[in-house]
Amino acid sequence: MPGAVGSAADDFVLGLDVGGTKLAAGVVAGDGRVLSMEVAPSRVDEGPDAMIARHLDLGRSAVAAAGVPWEQVRAVGIACGGPLDPYAGVIQSPPGLPDWDDVPLVAKVEAVLQRPTVVDNDATACAIAEWWFGAGRERGVSHLVYITISTGVGGGLILDGRVYRGAAGNAGELGHLTVDYLGRQCGCGRRGCLEAYASGPQIAARARERVTAGVESSLAALAEVTASDVAEAAAAGDAVASEVWDETTAMLGSAVANILDVFNPELVVLGGGVTRAGDQLLVPVREAALRQAMAPARDAAEIVLAGLGEELGVVSAATVAFERLPFAAREVAEHRA
Amino acid sequence: MPGAVGSAADDFVLGLDVGGTKLAAGVVAGDGRVLSMEVAPSRVDEGPDAMIARHLDLGRSAVAAAGVPWEQVRAVGIACGGPLDPYAGVIQSPPGLPDWDDVPLVAKVEAVLQRPTVVDNDATACAIAEWWFGAGRERGVSHLVYITISTGVGGGLILDGRVYRGAAGNAGELGHLTVDYLGRQCGCGRRGCLEAYASGPQIAARARERVTAGVESSLAALAEVTASDVAEAAAAGDAVASEVWDETTAMLGSAVANILDVFNPELVVLGGGVTRAGDQLLVPVREAALRQAMAPARDAAEIVLAGLGEELGVVSAATVAFERLPFAAREVAEHRA
Repeated sequence: MPGAVGSAADDFVLGLDVGGTKLAAGVVAGDGRVLSMEVAPSRVDEGPDAMIARHLDLGRSAVAAAGVPWEQVRAVGIACGGPLDPYAGVIQSPPGLPDWDDVPLVAKVEAVLQRPTVVDNDATACAIAEWWFGAGRERGVSHLVYITISTGVGGGLILDGRVYRGAAGNAGELGHLTVDYLGRQCGCGRRGCLEAYASGPQIAARARERVTAGVESSLAALAEVTASDVAEAAAAGDAVASEVWDETTAMLGSAVANILDVFNPELVVLGGGVTRAGDQLLVPVREAALRQAMAPARDAAEIVLAGLGEELGVVSAATVAFERLPFAAREVAEHRA
Repeated sequence: MPGAVGSAADDFVLGLDVGGTKLAAGVVAGDGRVLSMEVAPSRVDEGPDAMIARHLDLGRSAVAAAGVPWEQVRAVGIACGGPLDPYAGVIQSPPGLPDWDDVPLVAKVEAVLQRPTVVDNDATACAIAEWWFGAGRERGVSHLVYITISTGVGGGLILDGRVYRGAAGNAGELGHLTVDYLGRQCGCGRRGCLEAYASGPQIAARARERVTAGVESSLAALAEVTASDVAEAAAAGDAVASEVWDETTAMLGSAVANILDVFNPELVVLGGGVTRAGDQLLVPVREAALRQAMAPARDAAEIVLAGLGEELGVVSAATVAFERLPFAAREVAEHRA
């Protein structure tokens, strides 16, 4: 492979994970080891330039913490919410990043850090990371769908042993699968998308709306309600929280059934902040999806939580570079997969 | 390529299209020319063995009509409703074919006709046929999604220049994308699938239900209502028919928006009996889909009607053989695409 040198374990990449809530930076080796990880709040209200400057500082700090000299950091990989152009390196107004309108993120990072830099949709990046280093690692699958349930709901696709990005690099927007085509307003402009119900903020909003409407609930005592509060209150038997949680897992189960019928994958991996609820989320979603999907699709599929935990963000960002740039690590990882 | 001999125009295949309403058989050359086509009613109530026997007779008749000696018919390609196992050649209880439970169709056809035989999902077969010989022919696309709107609603996927079948050969069940996850009962067992509203029989059923409920309509005068009656009455200004037709195109538009967001294709091709309505279907579906999809997916996509018309069934069936068996024609067609 042109330009391939060294071995997986000697290839170091700086991974930058751009989120609407937090920024993460870390140095990752080609075999998936995380040498350092630093996290800071996103503060999206400060706009892209200030966010990018703080993220670059965080990256420098992660390199220092890793104890790796800058010369050995061979590239920068960035994971960011879409839509974006992964080939031009331009961020195209993601719903979670206000004012990021056609921001040439790759050019800005390359200009400062002086390293080959690539960006990809964060859910696509997570799909590759889970395929190589997470839930897909031991399973040796060729068809993996990753669903992130977080500030937004997104997806990444590994189809027939290859990353699938579509004609313009924007495939996999699984958060905009329809739950009810006349339903709740979604940030994308449509109605009734999965994201309009099952993202963390929307789970919280749906519970708040019931409480505001006067339904009695333990959530009424909280100054601010989060999706994790809803999960906890549901587990404790609160009726409002249980209703919202059960509706959420039913909708996610229906969407995963869609995904099984449409992609016929071997593995569906659920990740993102909302999946910290663990079995409280996974068990009902899996039950609903497997009950609803057509038999051959159902029989082929396993549905699991992400394997990489809190490090998934920086590993996935780094994986963007390992997958797209001509590293020896890429071949090693692909042959293992 | 092993076994590849002759040229596209000299490779003849017998295509058998198994539908819930009609059977078709035809001799097709590797360049897509149809030498003969014979059609007969399916009569699904007679069960698989009687249907298969009549279909084989229809095939012999098509070969005779083509004026091609049997020795020059190199293979048999079959297109059939899914779910099915395209590798084992077994039909797995498609909703439109009662009693077709694990029917080894390929083995049965091979035993009688003594020719290499392959089967694929009919919508996948149409996707390949439209890609090679239909709407995709002049456009040179690598990402094409075919949607059939017929007795059922199905899909076929060409992704990154390859046929996508998924882990068990059953990907592309686009008729089971959700319109409303608590909605109308679908034949697949789920609720609110696109097929439960937008298939030909369901368009007709939704109109009949309104008429039966006593709403005044020109459709009340008909002994039997079909989707095509609904389209005609809507065009003539009937209020019930217009309501059903507009709801149908809105649902199809929403589903196509899902498809744009999920696959980010260059070309979406709509085919099947319901699309005989032409612009009355295409224009509102296209408008709704392009309005709702995310910008990069919308900008990449063209939405058109199938290019192959009434010959699509036999051409698609034959294409299954050209795509899966080692013909010279396959290489010719793929290089053109």
